[in-house]
Amino acid sequence: MSDDPRIILLAHGSSDQRWCQTFEKLATPTLDSVAGSRIAYMELAEPSLETIIAQGKKEGITSFTIIPLFLAAGRHLRKDVPGMIDELEATHDVSITLAPPIGENPQLGDAIRDVVNQELERQKQPA
Amino acid sequence: MSDDPRIILLAHGSSDQRWCQTFEKLATPTLDSVAGSRIAYMELAEPSLETIIAQGKKEGITSFTIIPLFLAAGRHLRKDVPGMIDELEATHDVSITLAPPIGENPQLGDAIRDVVNQELERQKQPA
Repeated sequence: MSDDPRIILLAHGSSDQRWCQTFEKLATPTLDSVAGSRIAYMELAEPSLETIIAQGKKEGITSFTIIPLFLAAGRHLRKDVPGMIDELEATHDVSITLAPPIGENPQLGDAIRDVVNQELERQKQPA
Repeated sequence: MSDDPRIILLAHGSSDQRWCQTFEKLATPTLDSVAGSRIAYMELAEPSLETIIAQGKKEGITSFTIIPLFLAAGRHLRKDVPGMIDELEATHDVSITLAPPIGENPQLGDAIRDVVNQELERQKQPA
């Protein structure tokens, strides 16, 4: 057993399964390489944040870090998620850290540039 | 003058200036390296998609490619943006291609994994 916090990749969630599938694909390289990491949805899809925290607690984990799969912090990350965290910490007696959204890391900007260049190359190929 | 389409990085938009600033930072590596590229907002912020298309048309550009700075395609990208594109093509007599959202490119998943690993390293540093 490790003292590392459990990493939770938090996506917004949608009732559209295709939307959730895109996030599951986005999370795959992380889930495959970071031991014990999980994906959770803020609303409209399962597993919810509460489900993932409750499961972790059952396994003896008391420390969690949420990394939001959001490009920027809006109302959800400034207000709703901190409110959910306060409640979950009280209910499950755990400690939860909220990391900045992935879009605040400069690495994302570089990845976007690479994606744009790939798209430009793709458009230049004969159909 | 080039026949390359003008690249438009399309973000959702927000009345929160901090939200828009994060997207401007995310777009910077692309804007710095892809000639003539622009950022535009779907709603709630300026420049709007219409503003950017009208400006381009004035410069003689008739072909645009929109690359959505969205992690996944929900209602906005499946319905609202295609509707806006139809209208803009008719109004401005231009051709607009909608590329997949950046989150559908596997490169983004790899960038997310790297961001998560950086966050884990950061947490291990003594405060």
